[in-house]
Amino acid sequence: MKTIQSDNYPIYFDNSIAELVKFIKQGKYSRFFILTDEHTSVHCLPAITDQLVDMDYYDLIEINAGEESKDIDFCIGIWKMLIDFGADRKSLMINLGGGVISDMGGFAASTFKRGIDFVHVPTTLLSQVDASVGGKTGIDINSIKNIIGTFTQPKAVFIDYDFLKTLPARQILSGLAEMLKHGLITDAAYWDALKKSDLNNPSVELIHWSVEIKNKVVIEDPTEQGIRKALNFGHTIGHAVETNSLLNDKKKALTHGEAIAIGMICEAYLSHKKAGLSLDELNEITTVINGLYPKYNIPESSFDNLLALMLKDKKNQNGQINCTLLTHIGQFSIDNICSGHELCESLKYYTSL
Amino acid sequence: MKTIQSDNYPIYFDNSIAELVKFIKQGKYSRFFILTDEHTSVHCLPAITDQLVDMDYYDLIEINAGEESKDIDFCIGIWKMLIDFGADRKSLMINLGGGVISDMGGFAASTFKRGIDFVHVPTTLLSQVDASVGGKTGIDINSIKNIIGTFTQPKAVFIDYDFLKTLPARQILSGLAEMLKHGLITDAAYWDALKKSDLNNPSVELIHWSVEIKNKVVIEDPTEQGIRKALNFGHTIGHAVETNSLLNDKKKALTHGEAIAIGMICEAYLSHKKAGLSLDELNEITTVINGLYPKYNIPESSFDNLLALMLKDKKNQNGQINCTLLTHIGQFSIDNICSGHELCESLKYYTSL
Repeated sequence: MKTIQSDNYPIYFDNSIAELVKFIKQGKYSRFFILTDEHTSVHCLPAITDQLVDMDYYDLIEINAGEESKDIDFCIGIWKMLIDFGADRKSLMINLGGGVISDMGGFAASTFKRGIDFVHVPTTLLSQVDASVGGKTGIDINSIKNIIGTFTQPKAVFIDYDFLKTLPARQILSGLAEMLKHGLITDAAYWDALKKSDLNNPSVELIHWSVEIKNKVVIEDPTEQGIRKALNFGHTIGHAVETNSLLNDKKKALTHGEAIAIGMICEAYLSHKKAGLSLDELNEITTVINGLYPKYNIPESSFDNLLALMLKDKKNQNGQINCTLLTHIGQFSIDNICSGHELCESLKYYTSL
Repeated sequence: MKTIQSDNYPIYFDNSIAELVKFIKQGKYSRFFILTDEHTSVHCLPAITDQLVDMDYYDLIEINAGEESKDIDFCIGIWKMLIDFGADRKSLMINLGGGVISDMGGFAASTFKRGIDFVHVPTTLLSQVDASVGGKTGIDINSIKNIIGTFTQPKAVFIDYDFLKTLPARQILSGLAEMLKHGLITDAAYWDALKKSDLNNPSVELIHWSVEIKNKVVIEDPTEQGIRKALNFGHTIGHAVETNSLLNDKKKALTHGEAIAIGMICEAYLSHKKAGLSLDELNEITTVINGLYPKYNIPESSFDNLLALMLKDKKNQNGQINCTLLTHIGQFSIDNICSGHELCESLKYYTSL
């Protein structure tokens, strides 16, 4: 599979662990740190450390898996460990895990001593097709996702398809939501290819295609002034649903992809009402997505909470809620102001399915 | 006084408050936030808010004065207030105060929603000649100064000489140390001009000259890969002395400039021993600086602590302590590894004066 060249850094697909070891051994770094969680330290770390037996200048930093670990308090814990381990400006951070690891590890590294190098080794489908590409880092405060962060590019990304074999089916579906989104916003052919494939086991080719789409968008607009907002499709409502679920459903909270799936159905409905998406296209999107993800109950009594969360979204300006919508499958329109009434209607559309 | 052009932003010296009000009123921002401390909110804020009576889209955020307020916990407080006040990506942060305000306000802004615009209105001599120029932001963790930060440029800097009139003499001397440093590292003529002037009341012309020197250095090397390290003269030892004093002297802690003055004397001694600075030049530097600042007691029993603090300095690599030294007055040499023994000798030189 071809290495994808992003904004000054490569995204490897073939022999990625060997490439990572080569990267570490090139001699540019004084020390390195591998950030893991309790899952990746068991299932993924040995594949790397087995090849580092002759090296003693690295340390492991392990955090708990899950979005709760992305809180600023855990980030402070990482900074303090870097201090205690004697990290200097020539240190390297290796983020081995899903989106929580890459977002928070990227943020911790991009601000430690005003910035040390970091690379991503994404181990979930979601992080392979989404978080690892594009240079966004972020942490949460008061459960507001990514409210604090930077735009900082990694020095390289190493995507190893084999890591996906250890993932539960629900995690695969979580990543799939972002792949579906990539098709919906810019590439009808990719959407069609996805529809025809075994979506419970997406192939490495489909993953590569998804990363190519995202990479093209973020290279054109790294700091989200325009076209990059396309990637927010499904996320205005989806993020609110996700945050609300994290706050209220606790252990049974929605995955990111499950929430974005709901968000995409709602925002496809808004696209039909406001942006020219045809009824046939809306029905097609609804049928495909709704067929993949378990139905989630959103009582009307929670709509006010959800709207309040949407208002706190980073994408808003002047207190108005802003959505990226579809004009067709494969075409988007940014900066659509949506009223509270319209947003509630879209939530009712989802609950009526 | 001529406006200085830095890396894509202006540094105003004339009618600075009027320029700030013009900047705010240009209509680019949805809201703005003025970060102050209990001193600047009394002595400096009215000069600005008196001209904003027709505006209602701003909020004040006040922190306590002093380095202790630069801890990450206070930064989290600022982030939470920005969330509560509804700050969006088109918001502007105005940092009205000394180095603590500009460093922490700059960091908070540069990471809030992955970066909102900010400007500095430095109100101390130290922040006018140092912190406000160069794009370094920073906060402290465990009393380690600026261990977390970013390189992010302000959109403008507004220097108002009148603010200095409200400052105690000790604060003027604190800023003076950085002005002396600017002469010592790159401009013997400036050093001579300083020597001949009333150093307890530096003129606006001398402040302008100092900012010009610093600006020239940081434009050439914004992320401190090389020549910018010149600005670290006096800071390897000075930062350690400052941190140690903050930890142990509490209310009677050294100012930044008092600590840097000690650091410059010690590092001038090292410059003579290791980098070619003549004995005459060492004596001249020692006499000028020692004549300006009160003598501070550094017992030998604290040397180990100081060395441990120096080892945690951001400038180090591979566990070695790195100093910027002088080859002559007005000329510097970066990346001089100094041994623990040499550093202790330099501290003994200071205590022997």
